[in-house]
Amino acid sequence: MSEKLFDVAIIGSGPAGYSASIYASRYNLSNVIFGKLSGGTMSEAHKICNYPGFEESTGYELSEKMFNHAKSFGADIQLKSVVDIKKEGNIFKIFTDSEDTFESKTVILATGTKRKKLAIPGEDKYLGKGVSYCATCDSNFFKNKIVAVVGGSNAATTAALLLSEVAQKVYIIYRGEALKGDQKWVDAVKGNEKIEVLFSTLVVGLEGEDKLEKIKISKEYKGKSELEVDGLFIEIGAEPNMDLPIKLGLETDEGGYIKIKEDQSTNIEGIWAAGDMTIGSNKFQQIATAISEGAIAANSVYKYIMS
Amino acid sequence: MSEKLFDVAIIGSGPAGYSASIYASRYNLSNVIFGKLSGGTMSEAHKICNYPGFEESTGYELSEKMFNHAKSFGADIQLKSVVDIKKEGNIFKIFTDSEDTFESKTVILATGTKRKKLAIPGEDKYLGKGVSYCATCDSNFFKNKIVAVVGGSNAATTAALLLSEVAQKVYIIYRGEALKGDQKWVDAVKGNEKIEVLFSTLVVGLEGEDKLEKIKISKEYKGKSELEVDGLFIEIGAEPNMDLPIKLGLETDEGGYIKIKEDQSTNIEGIWAAGDMTIGSNKFQQIATAISEGAIAANSVYKYIMS
Repeated sequence: MSEKLFDVAIIGSGPAGYSASIYASRYNLSNVIFGKLSGGTMSEAHKICNYPGFEESTGYELSEKMFNHAKSFGADIQLKSVVDIKKEGNIFKIFTDSEDTFESKTVILATGTKRKKLAIPGEDKYLGKGVSYCATCDSNFFKNKIVAVVGGSNAATTAALLLSEVAQKVYIIYRGEALKGDQKWVDAVKGNEKIEVLFSTLVVGLEGEDKLEKIKISKEYKGKSELEVDGLFIEIGAEPNMDLPIKLGLETDEGGYIKIKEDQSTNIEGIWAAGDMTIGSNKFQQIATAISEGAIAANSVYKYIMS
Repeated sequence: MSEKLFDVAIIGSGPAGYSASIYASRYNLSNVIFGKLSGGTMSEAHKICNYPGFEESTGYELSEKMFNHAKSFGADIQLKSVVDIKKEGNIFKIFTDSEDTFESKTVILATGTKRKKLAIPGEDKYLGKGVSYCATCDSNFFKNKIVAVVGGSNAATTAALLLSEVAQKVYIIYRGEALKGDQKWVDAVKGNEKIEVLFSTLVVGLEGEDKLEKIKISKEYKGKSELEVDGLFIEIGAEPNMDLPIKLGLETDEGGYIKIKEDQSTNIEGIWAAGDMTIGSNKFQQIATAISEGAIAANSVYKYIMS
């Protein structure tokens, strides 16, 4: 058990967590950050071009910059997972996957979301080498290329439409029999000459030398069970990491995203939430929006501790 | 008159505007940015330490990075002020302080706020050399120093409390006879041994060789009409730039901040707003929150244009 009582414990080491820590340190709040993977989902991005001020960066580089920023400002960074949090009186007890426990006056939860994966061989191997989970981030790397999008709801249709503006050809590969989600996107897909939809079809394999070159599909298309593509966008959704919110009794929407107020506060006194796991920022999940929510949460914690 | 019809015209060249442009360009939306001062208020900050990823930067450096980022992604950047915007049918006509007019399908308004100034000699000369308008940004540069805060409402009391954690001594200089704003801050100021309040007093002059060393006050304190200080925080409020919102008929709150929905849309179809001039981000006005609002606005414009 750490003997120190922290002003704020920040659960999650992605951009929301680091931003919350940087702001907390500027307010002279003692703070500890927990996270197994520095940078979180951001760390896995092969190229980041939409964080203003950094024209081009890898997820790893930006994660390291934010880690160093938070650390040099005074954060205690613990490369541990938090397995449980218990409120005892006005103190939060934080249990980790090691023997260590920690105590804090307040908590900022920022554990992000998990992208749903296809769970097929090669999905990790080709990540950043053709396979992507974010069309907004990566579409421009596929100018005049052939790409496929997996999925059939809003995430997939909007990704396909965005890709159609730069790519030569876009396949949507969907296991269902009709596209779902907003009708305006479905109509736009139907009216788009570059997009072709393969229904009742699964992606079952990935092939390529150094980068993705072909995908194997479960149903023949033009007499073949494979498609030559340069990129595969897996847009079958994401879900918030729900273990801690459930244990803590935090209110969420039907998708599991934590309900927050304007100041990032939750339904439990002393707990704020920030980043991809909340309903905030119009649910536009970006580094830019995560750092904003982290900053607002830290500002709110500061006001709470001062009063 | 420019012959081009832009997808989106971004009014304001601060972090909200640049972020909106970077995202718009990623969505392949043609966009033009208008602003006389690249970086806006940000450009005037002498040190920025709370934008995650940049441990320490000047306002000028960060403004230049964002300018280059937006420009290299395709923004048409016009160093002009917009004097009027008129909606004609579905097109916005944009009038500048030059002869040129522009046309756009949509508008993102991001012209920020103006800090209220004391309007005394030397206020600009000592900016970044002792004079500051942002305690959250600059407090840590005054460790063990003597500082004064001008003002008497929440901005001033919270600035004084934050400064009291690092500074040796904090004067609040207020023209009124009693502090205003939230009682909890007023009580905290009263209970803080480092803070002394000088009521019914104005700051009337600034002195110093290369940096601020003394302030002149309108009422004697301990027999002197000057105070030795290392820093002066002018916390008498800010107000949104209201010319265009008024001309356009945009709904604002009582302080003049533009009312926006979750997606940064305003009460007028085709106009979104982002950054310090809106009621968004819990009114926590930071680079981090501005870039988030700009990104969300651009995402909303993209959805609007696609549909």
